[in-house]
Amino acid sequence: MSERLSNFVAGRWQAGTGAGTALFDPVLGTELVRVDATGLDLPAAFAFAREQGGAALRAMTYAQRAAMLAALGKVLQAHRDVYYEIATANSGTVKNDSAVDIDGGLFTLGVYAKLGAGLGAQRHLLDGDAARLGKDPLFQSQHVLVPTRGVALFINAFNFPSWGLWEKAAPALLSGVPVIVKPATATAWLTQRMVQDVVNAGVLPAGALSVICGSSSGLMDQLQPFDVVSFTGSAETAAVIRSHPAVVQRSVRVNIEADSINSALLLPGETPGSEAFELLAKEVAREMTVKSGQKCTAIRRVLVPEALYAQAAEAIGARLAKTTVGNPRNETVRMGALVSRAQLRSVQEGLAHLKVQTTVLHDGSQHPLFDADPAVACCVGPTLLGTQDADGADRVHNTEVFGPVATLVPYRDAAHALQLIRRGQGSLVASLYGSDAAALAASAIELASSHGRVHVISPDVAALHTGHGNVMPQSLHGGPGRAGGGEELGGLKALNFYHRRAAVQASTAVLTQLSPPAPSA
Amino acid sequence: MSERLSNFVAGRWQAGTGAGTALFDPVLGTELVRVDATGLDLPAAFAFAREQGGAALRAMTYAQRAAMLAALGKVLQAHRDVYYEIATANSGTVKNDSAVDIDGGLFTLGVYAKLGAGLGAQRHLLDGDAARLGKDPLFQSQHVLVPTRGVALFINAFNFPSWGLWEKAAPALLSGVPVIVKPATATAWLTQRMVQDVVNAGVLPAGALSVICGSSSGLMDQLQPFDVVSFTGSAETAAVIRSHPAVVQRSVRVNIEADSINSALLLPGETPGSEAFELLAKEVAREMTVKSGQKCTAIRRVLVPEALYAQAAEAIGARLAKTTVGNPRNETVRMGALVSRAQLRSVQEGLAHLKVQTTVLHDGSQHPLFDADPAVACCVGPTLLGTQDADGADRVHNTEVFGPVATLVPYRDAAHALQLIRRGQGSLVASLYGSDAAALAASAIELASSHGRVHVISPDVAALHTGHGNVMPQSLHGGPGRAGGGEELGGLKALNFYHRRAAVQASTAVLTQLSPPAPSA
Repeated sequence: MSERLSNFVAGRWQAGTGAGTALFDPVLGTELVRVDATGLDLPAAFAFAREQGGAALRAMTYAQRAAMLAALGKVLQAHRDVYYEIATANSGTVKNDSAVDIDGGLFTLGVYAKLGAGLGAQRHLLDGDAARLGKDPLFQSQHVLVPTRGVALFINAFNFPSWGLWEKAAPALLSGVPVIVKPATATAWLTQRMVQDVVNAGVLPAGALSVICGSSSGLMDQLQPFDVVSFTGSAETAAVIRSHPAVVQRSVRVNIEADSINSALLLPGETPGSEAFELLAKEVAREMTVKSGQKCTAIRRVLVPEALYAQAAEAIGARLAKTTVGNPRNETVRMGALVSRAQLRSVQEGLAHLKVQTTVLHDGSQHPLFDADPAVACCVGPTLLGTQDADGADRVHNTEVFGPVATLVPYRDAAHALQLIRRGQGSLVASLYGSDAAALAASAIELASSHGRVHVISPDVAALHTGHGNVMPQSLHGGPGRAGGGEELGGLKALNFYHRRAAVQASTAVLTQLSPPAPSA
Repeated sequence: MSERLSNFVAGRWQAGTGAGTALFDPVLGTELVRVDATGLDLPAAFAFAREQGGAALRAMTYAQRAAMLAALGKVLQAHRDVYYEIATANSGTVKNDSAVDIDGGLFTLGVYAKLGAGLGAQRHLLDGDAARLGKDPLFQSQHVLVPTRGVALFINAFNFPSWGLWEKAAPALLSGVPVIVKPATATAWLTQRMVQDVVNAGVLPAGALSVICGSSSGLMDQLQPFDVVSFTGSAETAAVIRSHPAVVQRSVRVNIEADSINSALLLPGETPGSEAFELLAKEVAREMTVKSGQKCTAIRRVLVPEALYAQAAEAIGARLAKTTVGNPRNETVRMGALVSRAQLRSVQEGLAHLKVQTTVLHDGSQHPLFDADPAVACCVGPTLLGTQDADGADRVHNTEVFGPVATLVPYRDAAHALQLIRRGQGSLVASLYGSDAAALAASAIELASSHGRVHVISPDVAALHTGHGNVMPQSLHGGPGRAGGGEELGGLKALNFYHRRAAVQASTAVLTQLSPPAPSA
């Protein structure tokens, strides 16, 4: 039997008392490690984090917490090679795809360390300017942001065991709020190892960071009014979390990032072979294959003018054809595996569901697998589907296949394209491709109400843009409706979730005391 | 049978098809009007508001919508006398208490008209500055706020039929989001009449404002992903709304303002008879009796140093003794009725519940009623309770009696006081009384994480402060935990709830197009 990973709660490493659940290599099929959270004293675990961790973090200034994040980043940087090994083994990802998770997490930590240093020696933040409450300026209202006096519970997704932890933990810890992370079981190893390295390095106060690997059973029951929970995963689980008494009755603040049927839109007026056209084909092929399409931000729908449908299918298909699929240990392989047999089944079922209303434009099942046994490996080639009935093919607008799958959708005019995109009922991201700045800006504003992010690719930024699916810490990550309605990242905006806002109405003499101390020379 | 009030939906007045529910005069017991929403075509009503109302409002600039709010305010101002008559008859309030609701609503409208004018000729808002996404400044991220493409449903409370509508509608309409209001049945008349006057005046585009009087049954079922719902009322109903599929499955954004056990705290170090001591006694007596204590922001717990318990009881009791209770039409009466027999019962039950763990320091049942029949009128005198067991009397920290009732709670030291206040598990407001600016500021920051607002009363602002319970549009209204976790008002912050935030990542050429046009000379 493989090694059973420990949980870190209440300031010490604790093994579960059950047999545990095995984690597998999705390419080789071998068992790697086991996780188990049976029998943990959860009330004690949450109380320790809330009380000891919270008090210790709140006693620090933002600058001190920022320095702590920088130290944390250094610890992770020192163990980077091990993380890549775990990612290859447990996530089946090629090096470039592991980097999105591992280096993406480190980069995000670094950005928050820098942003936090700029907040200086304060323990609360002023939110806007004071506002007079009458003609006399002596009595005013000043909004402040103070850390919530609770824990942040993260229930995370399998596709980002590193980035998914740090993109949430960086703003939480910087805010002075202790973190308890429950990674998705299938890929929990990397999360657990990173926490282990950080704990061993002693860079965080006791109770600031806990990890629970295994079942999430009972975690929500621990939450009290000033705690927060951030969930990334399926809409079904999101609904369970949202209807839990902690949220419904105790007003526990919840952030959800769930399903999303993201779009790429080639604006009207572009010719085949134009720069914008080629940028679309390149980005679609890249987004479909990075991490085998297992990104919540991946492109699922590709909208092009009706007249360009055939050329777009050909251009994207030509790029997909070059994608070598198989064992990530083989250096010629560009796309590794899905994360598990369960995900492989889910993608196959999703494909079958979509094929009822679409035709296959590029068939992933025709891709040979390199160094991988099709009977064992969770590998699939990229598949481009297409529909000639953009309005009638409702499954295309309602189904997220979490793998290397996208559907080409022809539109009549700009209004039709926007209307089709909105049928996703709220998405994380849409990307726009074109060369007319005014038209791009107008479309971006039109799509802003149904997306957390609009990524605009024009020829002048062909070499500079950061990618449709890459989540930059400077920008909001989240989306309304189907995407869960959450807001993560966005630079210092991320701190809002972990702070409580209050208006202090007082005399000028009292409000003066709330201002940060002048920086020392 | 009394007049049956019509509903205004889908651009026309529509009567319900049922017998309706009667509204009563809580002092005289007479039936006033009836409301009924049976048989309304709710899908059509919501679609009309969402599509016609939404499109019309979004086509306007912020400045145009602000001018619309100003026009709306003028219409209401012209009918102000009728509103006072309705308030006297249906809410049983004295003129000063009607003013809190009626003039409070008009004032809030005016503030948003002014704030909105400052937003100028834009149709979306920039949110912060652009952030570089790499070394090259040509590709950046700019957050924008755009109106959500949906309706705002307000399910409102009985205590503020005017202010409760306008404090929500002003930011919604200014944001470009159409409003459907469902007032609490007991006092729906004033809301309905105000909407009627506004509709008749033709100052709003079709679909911008609808009113549904009667049962809220089926309303939540209409909500789609880009709609929002704002609820004010009991924690029980809040839980029903939060667990509705619209919220749980469709991510409909929800704002809740529910129960709150607000506190007033006299800081340590004040002597009986000191200015701060007298300010506390005055404010507590005022807050207990304004609108017969039927304000979510009213003071429910009064914390004083143990040594001042008896003197505080005496000082507050002396002020309460002067409160004349009864028919608001009698000019000597200072405090009118509770809003209904149901509320009278609820207050009596709440008092009985608290009396198990407290003693009566000032007995409201000893107050004579002026011009009111005790067998008919929903009038009660103000009651001050007290406990000598601050830690053990859990009911005091958990029970909101929605009437003229508060409990005096002695504390040992500052830390004990803060801990007792936090046992409210999240409140709308706490007020602090003292003369030491540094101590007041430190306590305000300590209480900020469990309150939406901290109101600080020091002798220098004795004549200037705006009152513990008065909700100023410049300040946040809401509170974490038991208070529902919502955020209303706070100046332009209120617009956030009705907008969607998105990051636009694009070249400088595209982002330049997002900036507002230069103001014309």
